[in-house]
Parts: sequence; structure tokens; C-alpha cells
Amino acid sequence: MPAIKVGVMGAANDALPTEERARLAILAERLGGAIAARGCICLTGATTGLPDMVARAARRNGALTIGISPASSRAEHIDRYRLPEDGAEIIVYTGFGLKGRNVINIRSCDIVIIFGGATGTLNEFTIAYDEGKVIGVLRGSGGIADHIHDVLGFCNKPTTARVFFSSDPEALLDNCLAGLNGR
Amino acid sequence: MPAIKVGVMGAANDALPTEERARLAILAERLGGAIAARGCICLTGATTGLPDMVARAARRNGALTIGISPASSRAEHIDRYRLPEDGAEIIVYTGFGLKGRNVINIRSCDIVIIFGGATGTLNEFTIAYDEGKVIGVLRGSGGIADHIHDVLGFCNKPTTARVFFSSDPEALLDNCLAGLNGR
Amino acid sequence: MPAIKVGVMGAANDALPTEERARLAILAERLGGAIAARGCICLTGATTGLPDMVARAARRNGALTIGISPASSRAEHIDRYRLPEDGAEIIVYTGFGLKGRNVINIRSCDIVIIFGGATGTLNEFTIAYDEGKVIGVLRGSGGIADHIHDVLGFCNKPTTARVFFSSDPEALLDNCLAGLNGR
Amino acid sequence: MPAIKVGVMGAANDALPTEERARLAILAERLGGAIAARGCICLTGATTGLPDMVARAARRNGALTIGISPASSRAEHIDRYRLPEDGAEIIVYTGFGLKGRNVINIRSCDIVIIFGGATGTLNEFTIAYDEGKVIGVLRGSGGIADHIHDVLGFCNKPTTARVFFSSDPEALLDNCLAGLNGR
Repeated sequence: MPAIKVGVMGAANDALPTEERARLAILAERLGGAIAARGCICLTGATTGLPDMVARAARRNGALTIGISPASSRAEHIDRYRLPEDGAEIIVYTGFGLKGRNVINIRSCDIVIIFGGATGTLNEFTIAYDEGKVIGVLRGSGGIADHIHDVLGFCNKPTTARVFFSSDPEALLDNCLAGLNGR
Repeated sequence: MPAIKVGVMGAANDALPTEERARLAILAERLGGAIAARGCICLTGATTGLPDMVARAARRNGALTIGISPASSRAEHIDRYRLPEDGAEIIVYTGFGLKGRNVINIRSCDIVIIFGGATGTLNEFTIAYDEGKVIGVLRGSGGIADHIHDVLGFCNKPTTARVFFSSDPEALLDNCLAGLNGR
Repeated sequence: MPAIKVGVMGAANDALPTEERARLAILAERLGGAIAARGCICLTGATTGLPDMVARAARRNGALTIGISPASSRAEHIDRYRLPEDGAEIIVYTGFGLKGRNVINIRSCDIVIIFGGATGTLNEFTIAYDEGKVIGVLRGSGGIADHIHDVLGFCNKPTTARVFFSSDPEALLDNCLAGLNGR
Repeated sequence: MPAIKVGVMGAANDALPTEERARLAILAERLGGAIAARGCICLTGATTGLPDMVARAARRNGALTIGISPASSRAEHIDRYRLPEDGAEIIVYTGFGLKGRNVINIRSCDIVIIFGGATGTLNEFTIAYDEGKVIGVLRGSGGIADHIHDVLGFCNKPTTARVFFSSDPEALLDNCLAGLNGR
């Protein structure tokens, strides 16, 4: 079986207070480290912000990292979308724009971690939920992550997705990995 | 300028109590009629449920209707997705699955109406919001439509989208059409 | 059964000698007229050049016309891709770029007509061939159309596609329509 | 700068005579070894046949390998498309079908190698050509690879693509790498 791919979805462009940013940076470091320690591949939208922080931590700790870009080429990735090309080891260029890219992003994951985020991350959550992924919501990471419980209340419907909640990055990932078993 | 395309997004597979279904059928009829009366094109996901009811009403009243299918062909549309091929006058086959289809669905609309719905409709809302569409939320149509106000509270971020709310289909469409002016 | 969709694929940006352009304009007019006369819908890539000439002729003769755009929005269609928005009655915005758009273009057709063209049209031919479409090659329309026979020789493989050749637009369309029967 | 991605496109389902298959297996082994020796990433359509042979050789020699799947999930990759999941280290699931997948396949490559193949490979060539890639055609690898020169003759048009031809896998890759310089 191939290595498990853990996608990290969250706000690309955070304008956060310094203290909050420092708190989230520690969570990102821990999550990236946990992904690497468990031998998983770290997948992001080849973007900036929180997912980029997690991917860099994962990479620094030896994980393979992959980014799915909205751009159709390296030039467009850099010039039009202003995205980094050094965050992930491999970048896949879709050329389908941010929301088209999200579909491939999520489909390629075994586990989807929701880490802060706004409507873009909520978009990714809805794909993951409807396509039956194992989803981990990092409680206390702000933004939409702290409202997924409410969203699930609005959208009660049958799904094969499993949603785990934890404020501890390592425990969250372990729960998700356990949730993958038997699939 | 080409005719304005009004997309109708909502639950495809409703298992609703009879009375509630009858109430929504009246709203669907009114919305479809309003789309036709204003010379707009009605766009849906070529699906069942509420959007299909609106599209059939629009078509019966003379509107051009178009459906964007998740399937890659007519055969797959019918056999794999179990979707109707008589709801819209033209069906575009994407072959990108439900969530890939949604991206094209929304990009092709000038106005996006949220009519009930669950995570699939919330997915469409997030695309419309982030891609700056004029959005009309039909209050009282159940499901996610009645929680969009909360979602906006979670996801406060800059956007060029404009979101209108009304429980009156005709007024909602008129507000959205006015919101399109000057674009 | 819904109306049959006839896609017209060919060179978007022709730099042809005046006399050749006049000759092709007559063929385009005849093909567009034939599509309308047979009650078919005319589908193009919402582009310029030969397909646009056919679509305008089809529309003028009463056919419904639809264009599948590479752009993600009306603004991008006009400003980035420099494409016309008055050629087709309905434009679907994919945001997947030229080659991503082509996939949806072809999947949405019942019949694909190859009318001149270069690598872009050859790209569309390969999709149509591998996805089992009824294909009509307009002999004498220049470009890749006059080399499809060679390409078939290179790529001999099992397919459910059927390929018809004719230099007469009306006969070509009639052969394709007959080829659709029983599907 | 990230590692260079070399895509290998060719026939997925070859029904070749034993002797010819043995000859191509040697070429595949050499090409895969050359990709690994030059520190490149090997990208394929996560498919069978020639590209799979190259990817396995590249992987065995230490290259990172990535496959872009037509399927929307691991289950669909295996059950519906009957594709291997052990050929590439990372598989990206697009869910866009074979021809939708090809677009992402090519966009993600820096260099595209044409190794045998039929209409599917020709489809990939046309994308690579129109999107300005550095393309290497492995002469003597059969199928469409041995007719690309003719195709270029049919489709003479301005492009930023560069096309190299060689019957020697190592020399071909070196020429392509030199062609990438200055981009």
C-alpha cells in the first residue's frame, strides 16, 4: 500500500495578530512534525499561510511534500497567483483555478486536516465530507475549523466520511489514521 | 450582452415530509416562473430535486434551460448518476464528478440562487462567494439556505460577492438583477 | 430525447489568404445552415475563426448555439482570452484553460465536426476518437482536417468512434446523424 | 528551483509481439535509469504499459515517481480503471477521466517524453505542443512517436514548444534538459 497522504487545508492569507500567529505557528510545527514522524506524505494547495507552515515543518522533518497548484504552469504559479514554489517538493499544475484545484487536492488525500481557514477551507471541507474522506478538525485553530461542528449540524446527511475533532495535532492525526483502518 | 444566467443550487435528493415538499414546490414554481418572466437563462447541475423543479417551471414558462452534468456522457449521466435528461434543454457533460461539475456550474452563472440544500449546496455557495458572484439566498427554503447568514459570520473575508436574502422568489431575483447592474 | 448537439472544431486564429478565407466562409455558412435546418444545437469553444463563423450561421438560421469557454468568467473571456461573447447564445465558463475546456467541449457533443484546424483541433479529434464520438471530417477544409486519414493510420486501435469524411457539409452532417442512430 | 519533472507518455495497453516488447522494455529501462541518474522526478498517468515500465525503472534507480490518475479515488483507480497503485510513489486522483487527467499530466511536466503510443499519447503531445513544453520524441519506439514529425508538418504553427528527436534515451533526455535551460 502506498504511503498515506495527509492534506492540510487552511487559510492561505492570514492577517493575524502577532501573538495568534505565533500560537498557530507552534501548532503548524507540531502537525508537520507528526505527519513526518508517522511516515505520511503531506499534501497542500501549494499555497501560503498555515498549510505552507505545516508543509515546511513536515519537509524539514523528512516527509515527502506535494502541492496542487491552481496555476497551469510554474510561471503562472509565481507571477499570477504569487504562490511559493519552494514549499513542496513536487508541485502539480492543474490550471483549473483555486476552486478547481481544490477538487483534486481533496480527492488525492486519504486524510484531510482542517486547520483554521475561511470559505476556501470550507469549500475543501464540503468536498471531503461528500467524497467520504477521513477528516480531522484541529480545534482551536480559529476560522472555520472552530465552526465545523455547527456546519455538520446544518448539513446532516448520510456520508461515509468520518470527522474527528481534537486540539492536539498528534492525537488528531492518530485518530484519523485509526479511522482509516479497515478502509 | 448575452442573456443573464441564473443558477439554482439546492438539494438534489430530498427526503422531505409531504407537506414541506408541497410548500417548496410552490416556491420552485414561482422561482422558475420569475426566471422565465425576466428573460433569464436557468442553469442547474442537471440534477433532481429542487433545482430540477425550478428548471422545469422555468422551461414551461419559456426560459432556456441548461444543465451541467457530473457525467462524461449521456450514458453515464443516466446509468451511473441516475440523473434526468429531460430537465434541461441542453446538457453539458463535464465528466469531472459532482464536485468538479460544481465549479463549472458556478463559474457559468451571473446569479446564484441558494434554495435549500446540504453540503453540496454549501460547496456551491463557497465557490460563488469566493469567485465574486451575485448570490440570492431564498430564506425559508430549508437546509443550508437558512444557515448562510451564520456561515458568512464564520467566514468574514474580503470578497466582491454580493449576497441578498429574501423569502420571496420574485423579490430575491429582482434584488440580484439590480445587484448585477454596473458590473 | 434532447436535441442533438453538433460540435464544430477548427482553427480559432486563421491567417489565411483572402481567397481561401472566402472559400471557407461559404463552407462555414453551409455547415451552420445545415445544423440549423436539421434542428441540432451548435456547440463550439466560444472562440473565433471557423467555428465562430459556423456558429453565427447556425444562429442566424435559428439554431440554439452554445460555447464552452476556457475562461473562468465573462471578464476573463474577454480581457485575457480576447474571445467574443456574442457568437453563442449561451457561454459556459470552465476556467480550465484551452486544453481543459476542450475535454468538456467534446464530451458535450453527440457529433464532432472537424473543420480545418491545427494542433488544437487535433487535440479535440483525439478526445472525440477515444471517447467514442461520431466524427465528421470536412474534406477540403484545410489544416488537420485534410490529414485525419493519415492520423487514423498511425493510431489504429479499437474504438467505438465512427469517422465520416465528406467535402459536402450537408452530406457530412447527414452521414453523422445516420451514424448516431441506434446509439 | 525544484527538481525537474519528466513526464513519460506512451501506450498504456500494448498488445505487442514478444520480441518487440522485449526491445521496448530495454528502452524503458534505459529511460527510467536516465531520469533517475539526472536527479529528475518521473511523472506518468499512473497507468500500465510503457510509461509504467519507465516509472518502475526510475523508481528502482532512486527517482521520485508521481502518477496522475483519471480516477477520483484509490478505489476507482483500482476497480473501475484497473490501474496499478504500486507504480508510482505518489498518486494524484483527479476524477476527470482519461482525457481530463492528461491535461494535468502535461501541465505538471517540465519535459514530456513521447514513447510509442496511440491517440491517447497524441492527445498528450498536442497539449504539450500548444502549452509550450520541451518535448522529447523517442524515435524507434513505435506507434505515434514515429509519426510526430509528420504531425508537425500538418500543424505548422507558432509555439514556444521545442521538440527534440532521438533514438537514444539518454541523449534525448540530455537534449531536453539542455532545451530547458534559460527558461
